Amino acid sequence: MSDLPIGVFDSGVGGLTVLAALRRQLPAESFLYLGDTARLPYGTKTHATVERYALQAVAELVRRGVKAVVVACNTASAAAMPALSAAFPNLPLLGVIEPGAAAAVAATRSRRIAVIATEATVRGEAYQAAIHRLDREARVEAIATTLFVALAEEGWVSGTVAESIARRYLGPVFAGALEDSPDTLVLGCTHFPPLTAAIQSVIGPDVIVVDSAATTAAALAKLLDSQVARAEGSTGQARFLVTDGVERFIRIGPGFLRQGIDERDVERIDLAPLPA
Amino acid sequence: MSDLPIGVFDSGVGGLTVLAALRRQLPAESFLYLGDTARLPYGTKTHATVERYALQAVAELVRRGVKAVVVACNTASAAAMPALSAAFPNLPLLGVIEPGAAAAVAATRSRRIAVIATEATVRGEAYQAAIHRLDREARVEAIATTLFVALAEEGWVSGTVAESIARRYLGPVFAGALEDSPDTLVLGCTHFPPLTAAIQSVIGPDVIVVDSAATTAAALAKLLDSQVARAEGSTGQARFLVTDGVERFIRIGPGFLRQGIDERDVERIDLAPLPA
Repeated sequence: MSDLPIGVFDSGVGGLTVLAALRRQLPAESFLYLGDTARLPYGTKTHATVERYALQAVAELVRRGVKAVVVACNTASAAAMPALSAAFPNLPLLGVIEPGAAAAVAATRSRRIAVIATEATVRGEAYQAAIHRLDREARVEAIATTLFVALAEEGWVSGTVAESIARRYLGPVFAGALEDSPDTLVLGCTHFPPLTAAIQSVIGPDVIVVDSAATTAAALAKLLDSQVARAEGSTGQARFLVTDGVERFIRIGPGFLRQGIDERDVERIDLAPLPA
Repeated sequence: MSDLPIGVFDSGVGGLTVLAALRRQLPAESFLYLGDTARLPYGTKTHATVERYALQAVAELVRRGVKAVVVACNTASAAAMPALSAAFPNLPLLGVIEPGAAAAVAATRSRRIAVIATEATVRGEAYQAAIHRLDREARVEAIATTLFVALAEEGWVSGTVAESIARRYLGPVFAGALEDSPDTLVLGCTHFPPLTAAIQSVIGPDVIVVDSAATTAAALAKLLDSQVARAEGSTGQARFLVTDGVERFIRIGPGFLRQGIDERDVERIDLAPLPA
């Protein structure tokens, strides 16, 4: 079982930022990444639809053989973790919300935390709930920064356009002195890390920006140690499954993975509908 | 048969700009609009995937009973019209590319036309081909303005953000004097009409902006006159089918339809996979 890869599931390319952190943290492990590119983005869709898509994707990873699954998409983590745990009770499963919330609670001094995320993640209030489980008194402001997803996919991560969009979303929350605004900002969508510099130019250098990728990787290392043996002393491989074209994935993916993707490592697949 | 509604198919809400024009042109007709909101947007997806989605959607409209189908999505029109015609040989079918191309060729004096559209529409070169069928000598520049879709859905259709995005996409093509740039711009995506003012602020007031909605409506009126009888003397109804949540559709849709949408007129459905 320990020779099986770790499954990583995302709506598209954003989860590659999480995969990059996982590979740094666990270099001996192999990974099987599934990006549901034919139906992305998830962030503007309903809870029920995202839950159904996540169940199909994890079923496919399980069918192919994985020893654990990381749900690298915030929207899917927010919507589908209970349904996934119920459907796959013996599978070690990890989302990105709890590690991100833990990192934010550890970082903040003022106990005022802002979260930027997709419409669906904000509406589901999963970050708010996860932060309040760790600190009931924390004040949390969640902002749906819908355009950031398209902006990151377009690769316009700096310059006038990125900064004007960041200003419009974040300016009202971070308008005051640092004492009067959140001191910590959670990047609650895997598409957002490439936009960090543009975001920081609006909110100022003193606000701590938390990206759940690194803390998710640490949480996965802990989960695997306690549940399954780790492959030691080897260099793990990564393979990729996508539900739409390979060409766009290998064109846009490297900006998120921070590493090239070989076409031969990517396979286009169809996800089967769930049995009725 | 003439009592059946006219089917209108789009990836989401953008096609409502076409529906608005159809209703103005054909007030006695009823319409059944299908927005595939669970899988939108189509514009970043491959030809094969868009074709499959379009076949499923039109099959559903046909199953419910329609006397004609307008493919109101430019991406689907560009990718799927041949497959749709083959699958539904007896169904009057109309896309938005040909009417838009005809309007552009009629409007231009310099025979230099710019088309803005999604990645998929630009890549498929359907507008270029349709314009060249009408005027072999026309010069066509197609620009993928991917962010315009998210921008229109966010409702940020004017102001700094919209203008800075429009400038980045269109500035290079419209930088020179009018004699040296296209004199006509086709809005090759149904999401773009609400952005017309921001676009025109960048390209200048003398460039003619062509929106295919009105010409598609005229083409449909002609198609129906010649193929099926029109219902006269009554006021037609519009009903809506969506594959994801009703709430977002009735919140965002009216900005495109320019009219409120009653929740009771909207039904959430699942599209069946195609028979293998």
